[in-house]
Amino acid sequence: MKTLKWNSALILLVIMFLLPVINCFGNETLDTGIDDARYNKAIHIMAMLIAGFGFLMVFVKKYGRSALTATFLLVAISLPAYMLFNNFFFFPKIHNEIERLILAEFAGASLLIAAGAVLGRLKMPQYLALGLMFVFFYMVNEWIVVLGGLNIIAKGSVVDTGGSIVIHAFGAIFGLGVALTMTTKDEHKKTIQTDSTSDRYSMLGSMILWIFWPSFCAALVPAEAVPHTVVNVVLALCGSTLATYIVSVSLRGKINIADIANAALAGGVAIGSTCDSASYSFAIVIGILAGTLSTFGFAVIQAKQQKLLKLVDTCGVTNLHGLPGIFGGLAALPIVKGISMGSQFIGILITIGIALISGFLTGKILALFGRKKEAYEDAEEFMDAED
Amino acid sequence: MKTLKWNSALILLVIMFLLPVINCFGNETLDTGIDDARYNKAIHIMAMLIAGFGFLMVFVKKYGRSALTATFLLVAISLPAYMLFNNFFFFPKIHNEIERLILAEFAGASLLIAAGAVLGRLKMPQYLALGLMFVFFYMVNEWIVVLGGLNIIAKGSVVDTGGSIVIHAFGAIFGLGVALTMTTKDEHKKTIQTDSTSDRYSMLGSMILWIFWPSFCAALVPAEAVPHTVVNVVLALCGSTLATYIVSVSLRGKINIADIANAALAGGVAIGSTCDSASYSFAIVIGILAGTLSTFGFAVIQAKQQKLLKLVDTCGVTNLHGLPGIFGGLAALPIVKGISMGSQFIGILITIGIALISGFLTGKILALFGRKKEAYEDAEEFMDAED
Amino acid sequence: MKTLKWNSALILLVIMFLLPVINCFGNETLDTGIDDARYNKAIHIMAMLIAGFGFLMVFVKKYGRSALTATFLLVAISLPAYMLFNNFFFFPKIHNEIERLILAEFAGASLLIAAGAVLGRLKMPQYLALGLMFVFFYMVNEWIVVLGGLNIIAKGSVVDTGGSIVIHAFGAIFGLGVALTMTTKDEHKKTIQTDSTSDRYSMLGSMILWIFWPSFCAALVPAEAVPHTVVNVVLALCGSTLATYIVSVSLRGKINIADIANAALAGGVAIGSTCDSASYSFAIVIGILAGTLSTFGFAVIQAKQQKLLKLVDTCGVTNLHGLPGIFGGLAALPIVKGISMGSQFIGILITIGIALISGFLTGKILALFGRKKEAYEDAEEFMDAED
Repeated sequence: MKTLKWNSALILLVIMFLLPVINCFGNETLDTGIDDARYNKAIHIMAMLIAGFGFLMVFVKKYGRSALTATFLLVAISLPAYMLFNNFFFFPKIHNEIERLILAEFAGASLLIAAGAVLGRLKMPQYLALGLMFVFFYMVNEWIVVLGGLNIIAKGSVVDTGGSIVIHAFGAIFGLGVALTMTTKDEHKKTIQTDSTSDRYSMLGSMILWIFWPSFCAALVPAEAVPHTVVNVVLALCGSTLATYIVSVSLRGKINIADIANAALAGGVAIGSTCDSASYSFAIVIGILAGTLSTFGFAVIQAKQQKLLKLVDTCGVTNLHGLPGIFGGLAALPIVKGISMGSQFIGILITIGIALISGFLTGKILALFGRKKEAYEDAEEFMDAED
Repeated sequence: MKTLKWNSALILLVIMFLLPVINCFGNETLDTGIDDARYNKAIHIMAMLIAGFGFLMVFVKKYGRSALTATFLLVAISLPAYMLFNNFFFFPKIHNEIERLILAEFAGASLLIAAGAVLGRLKMPQYLALGLMFVFFYMVNEWIVVLGGLNIIAKGSVVDTGGSIVIHAFGAIFGLGVALTMTTKDEHKKTIQTDSTSDRYSMLGSMILWIFWPSFCAALVPAEAVPHTVVNVVLALCGSTLATYIVSVSLRGKINIADIANAALAGGVAIGSTCDSASYSFAIVIGILAGTLSTFGFAVIQAKQQKLLKLVDTCGVTNLHGLPGIFGGLAALPIVKGISMGSQFIGILITIGIALISGFLTGKILALFGRKKEAYEDAEEFMDAED
Repeated sequence: MKTLKWNSALILLVIMFLLPVINCFGNETLDTGIDDARYNKAIHIMAMLIAGFGFLMVFVKKYGRSALTATFLLVAISLPAYMLFNNFFFFPKIHNEIERLILAEFAGASLLIAAGAVLGRLKMPQYLALGLMFVFFYMVNEWIVVLGGLNIIAKGSVVDTGGSIVIHAFGAIFGLGVALTMTTKDEHKKTIQTDSTSDRYSMLGSMILWIFWPSFCAALVPAEAVPHTVVNVVLALCGSTLATYIVSVSLRGKINIADIANAALAGGVAIGSTCDSASYSFAIVIGILAGTLSTFGFAVIQAKQQKLLKLVDTCGVTNLHGLPGIFGGLAALPIVKGISMGSQFIGILITIGIALISGFLTGKILALFGRKKEAYEDAEEFMDAED
């Protein structure tokens, strides 16, 4: 077992070492224009990836060190991987350095969503392998749905500025695909433990995501569209936050802090597709509906899903990113003038298809690396981690 | 009880749902100019509101989930409320989207200060009701003191760039007004418990406020005045941080971590009025004096205030925002050339008056919604919150 | 004892009070040009100083309040001290306000590194005295190595854009100098206790440093060089993060969370010197090597260093900032075209020399203020800190 782990890790190191050497030939063609507005958004997104997603996943009481380490590793593998694959494979080359960084961060965000579905049940090197495979499939989907790859959908005809479909829904459904292959009976029975400290860490992650979400959605919109986009995202998040509280206490009798930490963000997920085109009224309505849908998912659907599909979705990414992502993609239909209904539907269907199949495949491959013995616990892999 | 709670929540939802529809007619007139410098400051302020104020209030050991959830709700209700009221009522319309967002955030900051005075003693829906009423009264005060409403003070004649008076002092005194109406005998006797974990969370909130405070004060100053403003704010914060440590250990024998987490920020509160006009020397002196005043407030005044006024100011907002805010407003008198002493005094007095009366009134109305049974504890309203 | 503490504190206050009055005469000459891109980086660096270094040092379980308070004080003393010393002493004057703020923050970063070496073993006023002395010696080294002071090295001939040498190595070695004079036998035997909560706080600090590191390195590079610099820093951090995980688990059998929190950042330290000149390939290779070197330092060298030099380096700054800093300075030799090998070597040697001697001297002076009785514990200096 240990040997296999080491082999995989060393191979990774060699890959990371060799590919940039190949990559360097392509460097010089990059446009290095001054791009300060986008630079700041790139840093904001980095805060979301690392501290946002990282701490949101710390809600698992005994798995905090692992969740944070895995977040570091997933970011550290996905950003160079996206840049290298863009240079190396058949994807259309990106010629602006900051734009490429931001697109790589989008892939990292989607990966962190996918990893959330199986959090606590992968060994560390498996997160790395997941990252490498995920980024490739993510780029294939992005290429087909957004960039007109294979000429299935006309380039630019899917409305998805802030990535409700290709970032959020893709990541969540890919994660479900992985979870389908690797949930054991023990994991199915095991309750995920939280306490007040892990809950507060999780709220920290959620808040960091909330704060910087406008930069995520506005990162690549034209400068003149940034203000309206930003206010739309803020209003959608306000809507989902209010709706989450009301629906949570309504369905459960008391507030569930995990609902707040997660579903409050559903407005950001769902406004993605139309963040630059919705009116303020639509933005806040989308937020309210997304928060309602997501909280309903956590409170009602999740238990049924686990029973029916015999899987565990550790972080509930189906409810935070899957359903609100697809809802956001569909919400573009009544909102955006001149939208191609066909493209939008096909784009969503292709995303679901590629995510599910490639996630399932990835899960099968990850299974070759063995299994974590004790789910949701640091102590198996970390020194001095019994407390 | 439960019915009333539900009615109020549902009414809120309907309001949130309907008002934007009215609002959308006004959207098109907004100036959507490129405004990246202000955009970044708007995000920085969002970090202060949500993660800064949020975690600062987590010092109450058993009320962390509630403090963070309340912060989310207060932000989510106040930002749209400010935008809607600006469109809907008689206030002069704001025509720049990012400027309107920043002004809404200022209202949110002031609201979070007010809520700090009664933290732990409101039920969740009461925070929402507090938010809606607060924003209206805040806007009335802003209109009269800053914008020349009712022709009492000439527009622009009160010196208060970073809001020492209309944001900090207003919020603190409004909170006191609410606290006057709703402190029970039990609450008066009850000690607020903290531990090392809640203290560290509180320091996190304090640090986030410290870090981004320059953006708060510089958010709406002209671009050429930003550098001097920013350095002034940093120097004032350095001054109050040093003074807080020295005065805390001097008055108490040992350091009180709550002094550090709170009074270290008093320089930021007090430099508000003159952040763009003070010299560096004045900035650091204002900071030192504000830190001294605030720490003295926490160490000496607070106990007397509680006894005398028979109220509990949970977060000590009187000492962090009230006294340093008024001190900052008065500090403008010797510093700013050509200042109208009359306007400055009347502005401060009107702010105190409106805040106290409207806060008291709001407290009376909130009392109609009943009371939290067990102060400073999550378990009454949150699932699985016994730890 | 208490008297001495108070005298020192009061003298400090007088200094802080008087020097700005002198300083104000120099204010008017400052260039107050619009500088928004740099302003945002200044705020990002502030986040690194306060929340980044602050929480990274919270890994000491019972010393969290102290670590955070010390961070506040070290920042609050170093920023004004740098500005005042620049105005007051013989150093070349800086004429741009934001540039001066950023250079002051660099000094603050270096100071926090130095303090990390003796964390938990200084009393609060000693951190302040350390700060004042450190900033002066730091500026002397900066003056000689970077600005051509004393005509030893030609101005600008040492390649050190992001401060691998003059910020990171200087701070670490200065800290070692202090540690050499003040490690007691008891401290040598005492194990530094951590737990899952302090570990997660520490990871938060680490993540904040990781996120904003690109702004640290790019803060003073010309605008057109920012994008390439930023991507280089991100790639170096990705490289060190991956290498840290692999080397940590390889050398120790299991992952050590302190390795992850610290050595993952070594890529940022080492890329400093060449952040604007390295190719992507070199950047990721430098990161991988720095992460490897740093983790090897924590896992293997640290224990030997403690035994051999009879000192305790609390945060392991030798391994995070010392070795990777010097490595980064040397890495410029094969990378930068037309580099003066002599200048680079002499610059590194002078930095090591000044840091070691002035650190040792500072340690001797700090010893005059007495010693903390119980290392690594808040309770000696903080109220209600028994938990």
